[in-house]
Amino acid sequence: MVRIRLHIAYRGTAYHGWQIQPEDRTVEGELTRAVKTVLATDAPVKVQGASRTDAGVHALGQVAHVDHESPRRLWDFVRALNALTDDDICVTRAELAGEGFHARHSARGKIYRYRIWNHRFNHPFLGDRVWQMGSRLDLGLMRQAAARMVGTHDFGGFRTAGCDSPTTVREMRRIEVIEAGPSMLEVEVEGTAFLKHMVRIMVGTLVDIGTGRMALERLDEVFETGERRLAGQTAPACGLTLERVFYPDYPWEDPQPELGGAYLSEVGEG
Amino acid sequence: MVRIRLHIAYRGTAYHGWQIQPEDRTVEGELTRAVKTVLATDAPVKVQGASRTDAGVHALGQVAHVDHESPRRLWDFVRALNALTDDDICVTRAELAGEGFHARHSARGKIYRYRIWNHRFNHPFLGDRVWQMGSRLDLGLMRQAAARMVGTHDFGGFRTAGCDSPTTVREMRRIEVIEAGPSMLEVEVEGTAFLKHMVRIMVGTLVDIGTGRMALERLDEVFETGERRLAGQTAPACGLTLERVFYPDYPWEDPQPELGGAYLSEVGEG
Repeated sequence: MVRIRLHIAYRGTAYHGWQIQPEDRTVEGELTRAVKTVLATDAPVKVQGASRTDAGVHALGQVAHVDHESPRRLWDFVRALNALTDDDICVTRAELAGEGFHARHSARGKIYRYRIWNHRFNHPFLGDRVWQMGSRLDLGLMRQAAARMVGTHDFGGFRTAGCDSPTTVREMRRIEVIEAGPSMLEVEVEGTAFLKHMVRIMVGTLVDIGTGRMALERLDEVFETGERRLAGQTAPACGLTLERVFYPDYPWEDPQPELGGAYLSEVGEG
Repeated sequence: MVRIRLHIAYRGTAYHGWQIQPEDRTVEGELTRAVKTVLATDAPVKVQGASRTDAGVHALGQVAHVDHESPRRLWDFVRALNALTDDDICVTRAELAGEGFHARHSARGKIYRYRIWNHRFNHPFLGDRVWQMGSRLDLGLMRQAAARMVGTHDFGGFRTAGCDSPTTVREMRRIEVIEAGPSMLEVEVEGTAFLKHMVRIMVGTLVDIGTGRMALERLDEVFETGERRLAGQTAPACGLTLERVFYPDYPWEDPQPELGGAYLSEVGEG
Protein backbone atom coordinates (compact mmCIF):
# COMPACT_ATOMS: atom_id res chain seq x y z
CA MET A 1 0.00 0.00 0.00
CA VAL A 2 1.21 3.47 -0.83
CA ARG A 3 -0.38 6.80 -0.07
CA ILE A 4 -1.09 9.04 -3.02
CA ARG A 5 -1.63 12.78 -2.89
CA LEU A 6 -4.22 14.14 -5.30
CA HIS A 7 -4.66 17.78 -6.34
CA ILE A 8 -8.23 18.56 -7.31
CA ALA A 9 -10.08 21.46 -8.91
CA TYR A 10 -13.87 21.65 -8.97
CA ARG A 11 -16.78 23.91 -9.64
CA GLY A 12 -18.86 23.36 -6.54
CA THR A 13 -22.22 24.52 -7.94
CA ALA A 14 -23.67 21.06 -8.51
CA TYR A 15 -22.36 19.48 -5.28
CA HIS A 16 -23.47 19.46 -1.65
CA GLY A 17 -19.94 20.33 -0.62
CA TRP A 18 -16.85 18.17 -0.32
CA GLN A 19 -17.80 15.77 2.46
CA ILE A 20 -19.38 12.46 1.52
CA GLN A 21 -23.07 12.09 2.40
CA PRO A 22 -25.40 9.13 2.11
CA GLU A 23 -28.07 10.87 0.00
CA ASP A 24 -26.53 13.94 -1.63
CA ARG A 25 -24.02 14.28 -4.40
CA THR A 26 -20.68 15.51 -3.05
CA VAL A 27 -17.16 15.85 -4.45
CA GLU A 28 -15.70 13.33 -1.99
CA GLY A 29 -18.56 10.98 -2.82
CA GLU A 30 -17.93 11.21 -6.57
CA LEU A 31 -14.18 10.68 -6.15
CA THR A 32 -14.71 7.77 -3.78
CA ARG A 33 -16.98 6.08 -6.29
CA ALA A 34 -14.40 6.65 -9.03
CA VAL A 35 -11.52 5.27 -6.92
CA LYS A 36 -13.54 2.16 -6.06
CA THR A 37 -14.25 1.60 -9.74
CA VAL A 38 -10.58 1.98 -10.72
CA LEU A 39 -9.35 -0.28 -7.91
CA ALA A 40 -12.22 -2.70 -8.62
CA THR A 41 -12.86 -3.07 -4.91
CA ASP A 42 -15.86 -3.22 -2.60
CA ALA A 43 -13.62 -2.64 0.39
CA PRO A 44 -14.00 0.71 2.13
CA VAL A 45 -12.06 3.52 0.43
CA LYS A 46 -11.37 6.88 2.06
CA VAL A 47 -10.56 9.93 -0.02
CA GLN A 48 -9.32 12.22 2.75
CA GLY A 49 -9.58 15.89 1.83
CA ALA A 50 -7.67 18.82 3.30
CA SER A 51 -10.73 21.07 3.50
CA ARG A 52 -14.41 20.25 3.88
CA THR A 53 -15.67 22.92 1.53
CA ASP A 54 -19.35 23.91 1.87
CA ALA A 55 -22.06 23.28 -0.72
CA GLY A 56 -21.47 25.56 -3.70
CA VAL A 57 -17.87 26.45 -2.77
CA HIS A 58 -15.26 25.91 -5.50
CA ALA A 59 -11.66 24.71 -5.45
CA LEU A 60 -8.62 25.19 -7.62
CA GLY A 61 -6.17 23.57 -5.21
CA GLN A 62 -7.98 21.09 -2.99
CA VAL A 63 -5.64 18.32 -1.79
CA ALA A 64 -6.63 14.81 -0.75
CA HIS A 65 -4.92 11.52 -0.02
CA VAL A 66 -5.98 8.02 -0.86
CA ASP A 67 -4.28 4.68 -0.33
CA HIS A 68 -3.52 2.56 -3.38
CA GLU A 69 -1.90 -0.82 -3.78
CA SER A 70 0.78 0.27 -6.25
CA PRO A 71 2.88 3.36 -6.89
CA ARG A 72 3.03 2.61 -10.59
CA ARG A 73 0.77 3.90 -13.33
CA LEU A 74 -0.15 7.04 -11.39
CA TRP A 75 -0.83 8.74 -14.69
CA ASP A 76 -3.37 6.09 -15.66
CA PHE A 77 -4.96 6.48 -12.23
CA VAL A 78 -5.44 10.22 -12.78
CA ARG A 79 -6.80 9.70 -16.28
CA ALA A 80 -9.29 7.12 -15.04
CA LEU A 81 -10.49 9.36 -12.18
CA ASN A 82 -11.08 12.18 -14.65
CA ALA A 83 -12.89 9.89 -17.05
CA LEU A 84 -15.12 8.60 -14.25
CA THR A 85 -16.12 11.99 -12.81
CA ASP A 86 -18.10 14.80 -14.41
CA ASP A 87 -16.40 17.66 -16.24
CA ASP A 88 -16.79 20.00 -13.26
CA ILE A 89 -14.29 17.91 -11.25
CA CYS A 90 -10.68 17.67 -12.41
CA VAL A 91 -7.80 15.82 -10.75
CA THR A 92 -4.96 18.08 -11.85
CA ARG A 93 -2.02 16.19 -10.36
CA ALA A 94 -1.05 13.11 -8.39
CA GLU A 95 2.14 12.03 -6.67
CA LEU A 96 3.39 9.71 -3.98
CA ALA A 97 2.85 11.24 -0.56
CA GLY A 98 5.75 11.33 1.90
CA GLU A 99 5.94 9.14 5.01
CA GLY A 100 3.09 9.85 7.43
CA PHE A 101 1.37 12.34 5.15
CA HIS A 102 -2.24 13.17 6.00
CA ALA A 103 -4.09 15.65 3.74
CA ARG A 104 -5.94 17.22 6.66
CA HIS A 105 -3.60 16.86 9.64
CA SER A 106 -0.38 17.68 7.78
CA ALA A 107 -1.78 20.92 6.31
CA ARG A 108 0.06 24.01 7.55
CA GLY A 109 -2.12 26.66 5.96
CA LYS A 110 -4.64 27.51 3.26
CA ILE A 111 -5.44 30.29 0.88
CA TYR A 112 -9.05 31.13 0.05
CA ARG A 113 -10.20 33.70 -2.50
CA TYR A 114 -13.60 35.35 -2.33
CA ARG A 115 -14.95 37.15 -5.44
CA ILE A 116 -17.40 40.03 -5.27
CA TRP A 117 -18.93 41.25 -8.53
CA ASN A 118 -19.61 44.81 -7.44
CA HIS A 119 -22.05 45.76 -10.16
CA ARG A 120 -25.77 46.47 -10.34
CA PHE A 121 -26.37 43.60 -12.76
CA ASN A 122 -25.43 39.95 -12.81
CA HIS A 123 -22.30 38.91 -14.62
CA PRO A 124 -23.56 36.65 -17.44
CA PHE A 125 -20.49 34.37 -17.30
CA LEU A 126 -19.69 34.33 -13.59
CA GLY A 127 -23.11 33.97 -11.99
CA ASP A 128 -22.19 30.97 -9.85
CA ARG A 129 -18.63 32.09 -9.11
CA VAL A 130 -19.20 35.48 -7.48
CA TRP A 131 -21.28 37.36 -4.97
CA GLN A 132 -23.09 39.98 -7.04
CA MET A 133 -23.70 43.17 -5.14
CA GLY A 134 -24.55 46.64 -6.43
CA SER A 135 -23.88 48.56 -3.19
CA ARG A 136 -21.03 51.05 -3.10
CA LEU A 137 -18.21 49.68 -0.94
CA ASP A 138 -15.71 51.75 1.03
CA LEU A 139 -12.48 49.87 0.33
CA GLY A 140 -10.53 51.95 2.83
CA LEU A 141 -12.81 50.86 5.66
CA MET A 142 -12.77 47.26 4.43
CA ARG A 143 -8.95 47.29 4.44
CA GLN A 144 -8.85 48.69 7.97
CA ALA A 145 -11.21 45.93 9.08
CA ALA A 146 -9.13 43.30 7.27
CA ALA A 147 -5.98 44.53 9.02
CA ARG A 148 -7.78 44.17 12.38
CA MET A 149 -8.49 40.49 11.57
CA VAL A 150 -4.88 39.61 10.68
CA GLY A 151 -2.84 37.86 13.38
CA THR A 152 -3.70 35.32 16.06
CA HIS A 153 -7.15 35.86 17.55
CA ASP A 154 -10.07 34.02 19.03
CA PHE A 155 -12.40 33.74 16.02
CA GLY A 156 -15.31 32.35 18.05
CA GLY A 157 -17.54 35.16 16.72
CA PHE A 158 -16.80 34.11 13.14
CA ARG A 159 -18.22 30.61 13.00
CA THR A 160 -21.60 29.11 12.42
CA ALA A 161 -23.59 27.50 15.25
CA GLY A 162 -22.99 24.13 13.56
CA CYS A 163 -19.22 24.33 14.04
CA ASP A 164 -17.98 21.69 16.47
CA SER A 165 -14.32 22.67 16.72
CA PRO A 166 -13.12 22.54 20.37
CA THR A 167 -10.76 25.49 19.86
CA THR A 168 -11.47 28.85 18.22
CA VAL A 169 -8.05 30.53 18.19
CA ARG A 170 -6.66 30.79 14.67
CA GLU A 171 -3.89 32.70 12.92
CA MET A 172 -4.67 34.77 9.83
CA ARG A 173 -1.39 35.52 8.06
CA ARG A 174 -2.74 37.79 5.38
CA ILE A 175 -6.07 39.29 4.29
CA GLU A 176 -6.05 41.40 1.16
CA VAL A 177 -8.86 43.37 -0.43
CA ILE A 178 -7.92 43.50 -4.12
CA GLU A 179 -9.41 45.47 -7.01
CA ALA A 180 -9.05 42.65 -9.53
CA GLY A 181 -10.72 44.35 -12.48
CA PRO A 182 -13.55 46.69 -13.41
CA SER A 183 -16.28 46.01 -10.83
CA MET A 184 -14.45 42.90 -9.57
CA LEU A 185 -13.29 42.80 -5.98
CA GLU A 186 -11.41 39.91 -4.42
CA VAL A 187 -10.69 39.11 -0.79
CA GLU A 188 -7.70 36.80 -0.43
CA VAL A 189 -7.30 35.15 2.97
CA GLU A 190 -4.30 33.11 4.07
CA GLY A 191 -4.44 31.40 7.44
CA THR A 192 -3.27 28.34 9.33
CA ALA A 193 -6.72 26.83 9.73
CA PHE A 194 -10.35 27.89 9.60
CA LEU A 195 -13.59 27.35 11.51
CA LYS A 196 -16.82 26.39 9.79
CA HIS A 197 -18.10 29.32 7.60
CA MET A 198 -15.27 31.48 8.96
CA VAL A 199 -14.12 32.95 5.63
CA ARG A 200 -17.70 33.61 4.56
CA ILE A 201 -18.53 35.40 7.85
CA MET A 202 -15.27 37.38 7.66
CA VAL A 203 -16.11 38.50 4.10
CA GLY A 204 -19.72 39.24 5.03
CA THR A 205 -18.43 41.37 7.92
CA LEU A 206 -15.99 43.22 5.64
CA VAL A 207 -18.84 43.93 3.23
CA ASP A 208 -21.20 45.12 5.99
CA ILE A 209 -18.45 47.48 7.16
CA GLY A 210 -17.83 48.56 3.54
CA THR A 211 -21.46 49.48 2.99
CA GLY A 212 -21.73 51.23 6.36
CA ARG A 213 -24.26 48.77 7.73
CA MET A 214 -21.81 47.85 10.51
CA ALA A 215 -19.44 50.22 12.31
CA LEU A 216 -15.73 49.40 12.11
CA GLU A 217 -15.51 49.72 15.89
CA ARG A 218 -17.93 46.84 16.43
CA LEU A 219 -15.24 44.49 15.14
CA ASP A 220 -13.43 44.83 18.50
CA GLU A 221 -16.62 43.80 20.25
CA VAL A 222 -16.93 40.71 18.09
CA PHE A 223 -13.41 39.65 19.02
CA GLU A 224 -13.92 40.50 22.73
CA THR A 225 -17.26 38.76 23.19
CA GLY A 226 -16.99 35.99 20.58
CA GLU A 227 -20.66 36.58 19.77
CA ARG A 228 -21.66 35.58 16.28
CA ARG A 229 -24.70 37.91 16.24
CA LEU A 230 -22.44 40.97 16.54
CA ALA A 231 -20.50 40.07 13.36
CA GLY A 232 -21.71 40.63 9.81
CA GLN A 233 -23.72 38.46 7.46
CA THR A 234 -22.50 35.16 6.01
CA ALA A 235 -21.36 35.79 2.44
CA PRO A 236 -22.87 33.33 -0.08
CA ALA A 237 -20.93 30.13 -0.75
CA CYS A 238 -20.74 30.64 -4.52
CA GLY A 239 -18.18 33.46 -4.24
CA LEU A 240 -15.61 31.30 -2.42
CA THR A 241 -12.75 29.27 -3.90
CA LEU A 242 -10.16 27.17 -2.05
CA GLU A 243 -6.99 28.20 -3.88
CA ARG A 244 -4.14 26.37 -2.17
CA VAL A 245 -3.21 24.13 0.74
CA PHE A 246 0.29 24.34 2.22
CA TYR A 247 2.30 21.41 3.61
CA PRO A 248 5.80 21.20 5.05
CA ASP A 249 7.11 20.02 1.66
CA TYR A 250 5.56 22.92 -0.25
CA PRO A 251 6.56 24.02 -2.92
CA TRP A 252 6.04 20.56 -4.31
CA GLU A 253 8.89 18.62 -5.80
CA ASP A 254 8.41 17.27 -9.28
CA PRO A 255 7.22 13.69 -8.98
CA GLN A 256 9.69 11.08 -10.14
CA PRO A 257 8.84 10.14 -13.73
CA GLU A 258 10.33 6.64 -13.29
CA LEU A 259 7.54 5.94 -10.80
CA GLY A 260 4.96 7.07 -13.30
CA GLY A 261 4.24 10.20 -11.28
CA ALA A 262 1.92 12.52 -13.11
CA TYR A 263 2.53 16.23 -13.11
CA LEU A 264 -0.25 18.31 -14.54
CA SER A 265 -0.13 22.05 -14.51
CA GLU A 266 -2.56 23.61 -12.13
CA VAL A 267 -5.74 24.56 -13.88
CA GLY A 268 -5.44 28.22 -14.79
CA GLU A 269 -8.12 30.61 -15.84
CA GLY A 270 -8.35 32.47 -19.09
CA MET B 1 -40.01 57.52 -31.63
CA VAL B 2 -36.31 57.40 -30.94
CA ARG B 3 -33.81 54.68 -31.75
CA ILE B 4 -31.89 53.27 -28.82
CA ARG B 5 -28.61 51.39 -29.04
CA LEU B 6 -28.22 48.54 -26.57
CA HIS B 7 -24.96 46.82 -25.60
CA ILE B 8 -25.50 43.25 -24.53
CA ALA B 9 -23.41 40.49 -22.93
CA TYR B 10 -24.63 36.91 -22.76
CA ARG B 11 -23.54 33.39 -22.05
CA GLY B 12 -24.92 31.59 -25.09
CA THR B 13 -25.02 28.08 -23.59
CA ALA B 14 -28.75 27.99 -22.89
CA TYR B 15 -29.85 29.72 -26.13
CA HIS B 16 -30.38 28.61 -29.71
CA GLY B 17 -28.33 31.56 -30.88
CA TRP B 18 -29.22 35.21 -31.24
CA GLN B 19 -31.89 35.15 -33.92
CA ILE B 20 -35.53 34.91 -32.86
CA GLN B 21 -37.22 31.57 -33.62
CA PRO B 22 -40.83 30.50 -33.18
CA GLU B 23 -40.11 27.42 -31.04
CA ASP B 24 -36.64 27.76 -29.51
CA ARG B 25 -35.32 30.07 -26.83
CA THR B 26 -33.00 32.69 -28.32
CA VAL B 27 -31.36 35.86 -27.04
CA GLU B 28 -33.25 38.09 -29.48
CA GLY B 29 -36.46 36.30 -28.50
CA GLU B 30 -35.89 36.89 -24.78
CA LEU B 31 -35.03 40.56 -25.31
CA THR B 32 -38.02 41.08 -27.61
CA ARG B 33 -40.34 39.63 -24.98
CA ALA B 34 -38.76 41.88 -22.33
CA VAL B 35 -39.06 45.02 -24.50
CA LYS B 36 -42.72 44.26 -25.23
CA THR B 37 -43.38 43.89 -21.52
CA VAL B 38 -41.65 47.17 -20.67
CA LEU B 39 -43.40 49.08 -23.45
CA ALA B 40 -46.67 47.33 -22.59
CA THR B 41 -47.38 46.80 -26.27
CA ASP B 42 -48.71 44.02 -28.45
CA ALA B 43 -47.44 45.81 -31.55
CA PRO B 44 -44.51 44.18 -33.36
CA VAL B 45 -41.14 45.00 -31.78
CA LYS B 46 -37.81 44.40 -33.52
CA VAL B 47 -34.60 44.07 -31.53
CA GLN B 48 -32.12 44.32 -34.40
CA GLY B 49 -28.77 42.76 -33.55
CA ALA B 50 -25.39 43.45 -35.15
CA SER B 51 -24.42 39.77 -35.30
CA ARG B 52 -26.56 36.64 -35.54
CA THR B 53 -24.41 34.53 -33.22
CA ASP B 54 -24.84 30.73 -33.46
CA ALA B 55 -26.34 28.52 -30.77
CA GLY B 56 -23.88 28.29 -27.86
CA VAL B 57 -21.79 31.30 -28.93
CA HIS B 58 -21.27 33.99 -26.28
CA ALA B 59 -21.07 37.77 -26.42
CA LEU B 60 -19.46 40.48 -24.35
CA GLY B 61 -20.14 43.28 -26.81
CA GLN B 62 -23.19 42.47 -28.92
CA VAL B 63 -24.96 45.62 -30.11
CA ALA B 64 -28.61 45.96 -31.04
CA HIS B 65 -31.06 48.74 -31.74
CA VAL B 66 -34.69 49.05 -30.80
CA ASP B 67 -37.20 51.84 -31.30
CA HIS B 68 -38.77 53.37 -28.23
CA GLU B 69 -41.31 56.14 -27.82
CA SER B 70 -39.24 58.28 -25.43
CA PRO B 71 -35.56 59.12 -24.94
CA ARG B 72 -36.06 59.61 -21.23
CA ARG B 73 -35.63 57.08 -18.45
CA LEU B 74 -33.11 55.04 -20.44
CA TRP B 75 -31.68 53.84 -17.17
CA ASP B 76 -35.04 52.48 -16.04
CA PHE B 77 -35.38 50.78 -19.43
CA VAL B 78 -32.04 48.97 -18.96
CA ARG B 79 -32.92 47.98 -15.41
CA ALA B 80 -36.27 46.59 -16.52
CA LEU B 81 -34.73 44.59 -19.39
CA ASN B 82 -32.22 43.06 -16.96
CA ALA B 83 -34.94 42.27 -14.46
CA LEU B 84 -37.06 40.61 -17.15
CA THR B 85 -34.30 38.42 -18.64
CA ASP B 86 -32.36 35.58 -17.03
CA ASP B 87 -29.01 36.14 -15.33
CA ASP B 88 -27.07 34.88 -18.35
CA ILE B 89 -28.18 37.93 -20.39
CA CYS B 90 -27.05 41.40 -19.35
CA VAL B 91 -27.77 44.71 -21.05
CA THR B 92 -24.61 46.56 -20.07
CA ARG B 93 -25.33 49.94 -21.62
CA ALA B 94 -27.91 51.91 -23.55
CA GLU B 95 -27.82 55.25 -25.34
CA LEU B 96 -29.60 57.22 -28.01
CA ALA B 97 -28.48 56.08 -31.46
CA GLY B 98 -27.43 58.70 -33.97
CA GLU B 99 -29.48 59.61 -37.06
CA GLY B 100 -29.93 56.64 -39.40
CA PHE B 101 -28.17 54.17 -37.11
CA HIS B 102 -28.76 50.49 -37.88
CA ALA B 103 -27.05 47.91 -35.63
CA ARG B 104 -26.35 45.57 -38.53
CA HIS B 105 -25.93 47.83 -41.56
CA SER B 106 -23.95 50.57 -39.81
CA ALA B 107 -21.38 48.11 -38.39
CA ARG B 108 -17.88 48.67 -39.75
CA GLY B 109 -16.15 45.71 -38.17
CA LYS B 110 -16.21 43.11 -35.40
CA ILE B 111 -13.81 41.39 -33.04
CA TYR B 112 -14.33 37.75 -32.12
CA ARG B 113 -12.27 35.82 -29.59
CA TYR B 114 -11.98 32.03 -29.70
CA ARG B 115 -10.71 30.20 -26.59
CA ILE B 116 -8.90 26.87 -26.73
CA TRP B 117 -8.22 25.05 -23.46
CA ASN B 118 -5.17 23.09 -24.59
CA HIS B 119 -5.10 20.54 -21.82
CA ARG B 120 -5.78 16.83 -21.55
CA PHE B 121 -8.59 17.36 -19.05
CA ASN B 122 -11.64 19.56 -18.94
CA HIS B 123 -11.42 22.90 -17.20
CA PRO B 124 -13.89 22.60 -14.31
CA PHE B 125 -14.90 26.29 -14.49
CA LEU B 126 -14.79 26.99 -18.22
CA GLY B 127 -16.38 23.89 -19.71
CA ASP B 128 -18.93 25.78 -21.80
CA ARG B 129 -16.64 28.68 -22.67
CA VAL B 130 -13.73 26.89 -24.36
CA TRP B 131 -12.81 24.19 -26.86
CA GLN B 132 -10.96 21.61 -24.79
CA MET B 133 -8.27 19.83 -26.76
CA GLY B 134 -5.31 17.81 -25.51
CA SER B 135 -3.37 17.69 -28.79
CA ARG B 136 -0.03 19.44 -29.02
CA LEU B 137 -0.35 22.52 -31.23
CA ASP B 138 2.45 24.05 -33.33
CA LEU B 139 1.87 27.76 -32.69
CA GLY B 140 4.45 28.77 -35.29
CA LEU B 141 2.51 26.97 -38.03
CA MET B 142 -0.78 28.35 -36.73
CA ARG B 143 0.62 31.89 -36.86
CA GLN B 144 1.85 31.39 -40.43
CA ALA B 145 -1.60 30.17 -41.39
CA ALA B 146 -3.25 33.11 -39.59
CA ALA B 147 -1.00 35.55 -41.49
CA ARG B 148 -2.12 33.94 -44.75
CA MET B 149 -5.77 34.63 -43.84
CA VAL B 150 -5.24 38.33 -43.07
CA GLY B 151 -6.21 40.78 -45.79
CA THR B 152 -8.97 40.87 -48.38
CA HIS B 153 -9.77 37.42 -49.77
CA ASP B 154 -12.61 35.35 -51.11
CA PHE B 155 -13.61 33.35 -48.03
CA GLY B 156 -16.02 31.10 -49.92
CA GLY B 157 -14.19 28.02 -48.58
CA PHE B 158 -14.78 29.18 -45.03
CA ARG B 159 -18.55 29.16 -44.77
CA THR B 160 -21.15 26.56 -44.06
CA ALA B 161 -23.47 25.24 -46.77
CA GLY B 162 -26.33 27.03 -45.02
CA CYS B 163 -24.79 30.47 -45.63
CA ASP B 164 -26.89 32.53 -48.04
CA SER B 165 -24.64 35.57 -48.42
CA PRO B 166 -24.45 36.67 -52.10
CA THR B 167 -20.82 37.80 -51.72
CA THR B 168 -17.89 35.95 -50.16
CA VAL B 169 -15.07 38.51 -50.27
CA ARG B 170 -14.24 39.79 -46.80
CA GLU B 171 -11.41 41.71 -45.18
CA MET B 172 -9.65 40.31 -42.11
CA ARG B 173 -7.73 43.13 -40.48
CA ARG B 174 -6.00 41.11 -37.79
CA ILE B 175 -5.78 37.48 -36.64
CA GLU B 176 -3.71 36.82 -33.53
CA VAL B 177 -2.84 33.50 -31.89
CA ILE B 178 -2.27 34.42 -28.25
CA GLU B 179 -0.89 32.36 -25.35
CA ALA B 180 -3.30 33.78 -22.80
CA GLY B 181 -2.24 31.66 -19.82
CA PRO B 182 -1.05 28.19 -18.85
CA SER B 183 -2.77 25.84 -21.34
CA MET B 184 -5.02 28.66 -22.59
CA LEU B 185 -4.81 29.71 -26.20
CA GLU B 186 -6.87 32.49 -27.77
CA VAL B 187 -7.46 33.36 -31.40
CA GLU B 188 -8.54 36.97 -31.82
CA VAL B 189 -10.04 37.86 -35.18
CA GLU B 190 -10.89 41.37 -36.34
CA GLY B 191 -12.62 41.79 -39.67
CA THR B 192 -15.09 43.95 -41.52
CA ALA B 193 -17.78 41.29 -41.79
CA PHE B 194 -18.10 37.52 -41.57
CA LEU B 195 -19.84 34.65 -43.37
CA LYS B 196 -21.86 32.02 -41.51
CA HIS B 197 -19.54 29.83 -39.36
CA MET B 198 -16.54 31.65 -40.85
CA VAL B 199 -14.64 32.27 -37.59
CA ARG B 200 -15.30 28.70 -36.43
CA ILE B 201 -14.03 27.22 -39.73
CA MET B 202 -10.99 29.53 -39.67
CA VAL B 203 -10.15 28.43 -36.12
CA GLY B 204 -10.79 24.76 -36.95
CA THR B 205 -8.43 25.13 -39.91
CA LEU B 206 -5.75 26.78 -37.76
CA VAL B 207 -6.05 23.93 -35.26
CA ASP B 208 -5.88 21.24 -37.97
CA ILE B 209 -2.73 22.91 -39.28
CA GLY B 210 -1.37 23.18 -35.71
CA THR B 211 -1.84 19.46 -35.06
CA GLY B 212 -0.40 18.50 -38.46
CA ARG B 213 -3.67 17.03 -39.69
CA MET B 214 -3.72 19.57 -42.52
CA ALA B 215 -0.71 20.90 -44.45
CA LEU B 216 -0.12 24.64 -44.35
CA GLU B 217 0.15 24.64 -48.14
CA ARG B 218 -3.43 23.43 -48.52
CA LEU B 219 -4.60 26.81 -47.30
CA ASP B 220 -3.73 28.31 -50.70
CA GLU B 221 -5.90 25.66 -52.35
CA VAL B 222 -8.83 26.55 -50.10
CA PHE B 223 -8.56 30.19 -51.13
CA GLU B 224 -8.07 29.33 -54.81
CA THR B 225 -10.91 26.84 -55.14
CA GLY B 226 -13.31 28.17 -52.49
CA GLU B 227 -14.07 24.54 -51.60
CA ARG B 228 -15.27 24.06 -48.04
CA ARG B 229 -14.20 20.39 -47.95
CA LEU B 230 -10.54 21.37 -48.39
CA ALA B 231 -10.56 23.57 -45.27
CA GLY B 232 -10.38 22.29 -41.68
CA GLN B 233 -13.06 21.27 -39.23
CA THR B 234 -15.64 23.65 -37.75
CA ALA B 235 -14.53 24.55 -34.23
CA PRO B 236 -17.28 24.08 -31.61
CA ALA B 237 -19.53 27.07 -30.93
CA CYS B 238 -18.88 27.14 -27.18
CA GLY B 239 -15.33 28.51 -27.60
CA LEU B 240 -16.47 31.63 -29.45
CA THR B 241 -17.28 35.07 -28.02
CA LEU B 242 -18.34 38.21 -29.92
CA GLU B 243 -16.20 40.82 -28.20
CA ARG B 244 -16.90 44.08 -29.96
CA VAL B 245 -18.74 45.71 -32.85
CA PHE B 246 -17.32 48.86 -34.43
CA TYR B 247 -19.34 51.77 -35.81
CA PRO B 248 -18.32 55.07 -37.36
CA ASP B 249 -18.84 56.80 -34.00
CA TYR B 250 -16.61 54.33 -32.09
CA PRO B 251 -15.15 54.90 -29.51
CA TRP B 252 -18.50 55.72 -28.00
CA GLU B 253 -19.19 59.08 -26.56
CA ASP B 254 -20.51 59.23 -23.06
CA PRO B 255 -24.27 59.42 -23.26
CA GLN B 256 -25.75 62.71 -22.15
CA PRO B 257 -26.84 62.41 -18.53
CA GLU B 258 -29.53 65.08 -18.97
CA LEU B 259 -31.30 62.69 -21.32
CA GLY B 260 -31.14 59.95 -18.73
CA GLY B 261 -28.57 58.04 -20.78
CA ALA B 262 -27.19 55.07 -18.93
CA TYR B 263 -23.53 54.24 -19.07
CA LEU B 264 -22.58 50.92 -17.57
CA SER B 265 -19.04 49.68 -17.65
CA GLU B 266 -18.56 46.79 -20.01
CA VAL B 267 -18.78 43.53 -18.19
CA GLY B 268 -15.22 42.49 -17.35
CA GLU B 269 -13.95 39.14 -16.24
CA GLY B 270 -12.17 38.29 -13.03
